[in-house]
Amino acid sequence: MDIDWDGITHVTKVDPAKPLPSDLGALEGTDLVLVGGSDDVTEANTLEAIAAIDDAHPSLPVFQEPYSSSHVSKATIEAADYLSVPAVYNGDREHFVGKHVDLFTEVGSKPEALLGASLPVVGDLISSKGADAVADLATNVVGEGYVIQHLESTAAATSGVEATYTSEQVAGAALATETFYGFPIFYIEYSGTYGGPADVEAAARYLEETALFYGGGIDSRAKATEILEAGADAIVVGDCFHDDPETFRETIPE
Amino acid sequence: MDIDWDGITHVTKVDPAKPLPSDLGALEGTDLVLVGGSDDVTEANTLEAIAAIDDAHPSLPVFQEPYSSSHVSKATIEAADYLSVPAVYNGDREHFVGKHVDLFTEVGSKPEALLGASLPVVGDLISSKGADAVADLATNVVGEGYVIQHLESTAAATSGVEATYTSEQVAGAALATETFYGFPIFYIEYSGTYGGPADVEAAARYLEETALFYGGGIDSRAKATEILEAGADAIVVGDCFHDDPETFRETIPE
Repeated sequence: MDIDWDGITHVTKVDPAKPLPSDLGALEGTDLVLVGGSDDVTEANTLEAIAAIDDAHPSLPVFQEPYSSSHVSKATIEAADYLSVPAVYNGDREHFVGKHVDLFTEVGSKPEALLGASLPVVGDLISSKGADAVADLATNVVGEGYVIQHLESTAAATSGVEATYTSEQVAGAALATETFYGFPIFYIEYSGTYGGPADVEAAARYLEETALFYGGGIDSRAKATEILEAGADAIVVGDCFHDDPETFRETIPE
Repeated sequence: MDIDWDGITHVTKVDPAKPLPSDLGALEGTDLVLVGGSDDVTEANTLEAIAAIDDAHPSLPVFQEPYSSSHVSKATIEAADYLSVPAVYNGDREHFVGKHVDLFTEVGSKPEALLGASLPVVGDLISSKGADAVADLATNVVGEGYVIQHLESTAAATSGVEATYTSEQVAGAALATETFYGFPIFYIEYSGTYGGPADVEAAARYLEETALFYGGGIDSRAKATEILEAGADAIVVGDCFHDDPETFRETIPE
């Protein structure tokens, strides 16, 4: 699936360890779903959540955003449109480059396990087809440049974040994303609390090709509007999707 | 300067702290020069080396490859065709993401200092022109995905490398470069010792758009040929350029 980044204004973060609302109609107005979380998430409940969303809204893009490589399998990569892997600028080494090399080493060295037994196994064919298949698989992975700005969050603890960034550093990380790393997404994550527009304004100055996501504490139309007017391409709304459908609907831009 | 990566087969690494050969004619057959080093390198001797090479071979691309941000200034960025910044996969956090965010934060927050006093300073103009100028500057920066495979080297010590990678991990880092980070160069660095073709073969399987560089211990036509035949796009030759012009000429493919 090719993603029309320009058309993405509202993103829903779904935690597969929490029950889905009985009526998924609320997703009608969202443009993208990220499926992922930390506590109690498994490969199995990830697959269930993706399948339920796909059934209700077949044309809605669904990304798996794994917190651990144990949530990822050939089945989840095939079920989701993309595997979106956070690169946490203010996290520890593991959460920027360490886990990425591990992931791609695993993808590269076990193509048969990841891709099923259908690869030709004759002479040079195995290596050439294997490499092509691995390359295909890898193109379903996108990077998200992340800055986690709420120290008292599970996301910060999980990613080894020991300090938040100033708005100037957020801008520097945005510029690095746009011109150096080239990730398609730059994501300012206030996880559970509302951070206001300052970091978004600082980052937006340097982002043209990169989609700017903001997540954290958006529980009203006013906050959604404030963040979008500050320059975010999309707001990410999580908690109230599971807990408070009325508030969730309010966050969807008209 | 747009770089024709396909045309780059032989790269010369010039240490600006060492005297240049009196006759720079040996660079006739090289396709790209990297200027950089650790001990005794300064902004001033970097500028001198770039100017001398530029005078002798005006159309030869010259990159500054800084080991420290103190080697970088507005003058060096303008003098070199690109600033190529190593991202060391098996190094410490500082040498993958830490210094990059610092660099881009500095570029972003001090555009006037970096760009001279010629920016318009009226109302909104300063911020819009400032951001454009910063973006232009940032496009002169390219990333090099690096793996440093010789523990007893200054490069390893400087970058916090505590372990070398297996060939499978080198392949994983190559795949991550090609599909996730998108750096234009993946560089296997055996710094001062000859590593043979195994890592190059492993990495080459996954690289199409990324240029594969190998450096370390190339001091003969036979070694140059072995590495290029293993799949490297280019060999990087350093020490003998300064010390042994006869050997240096031998490493240039016919």
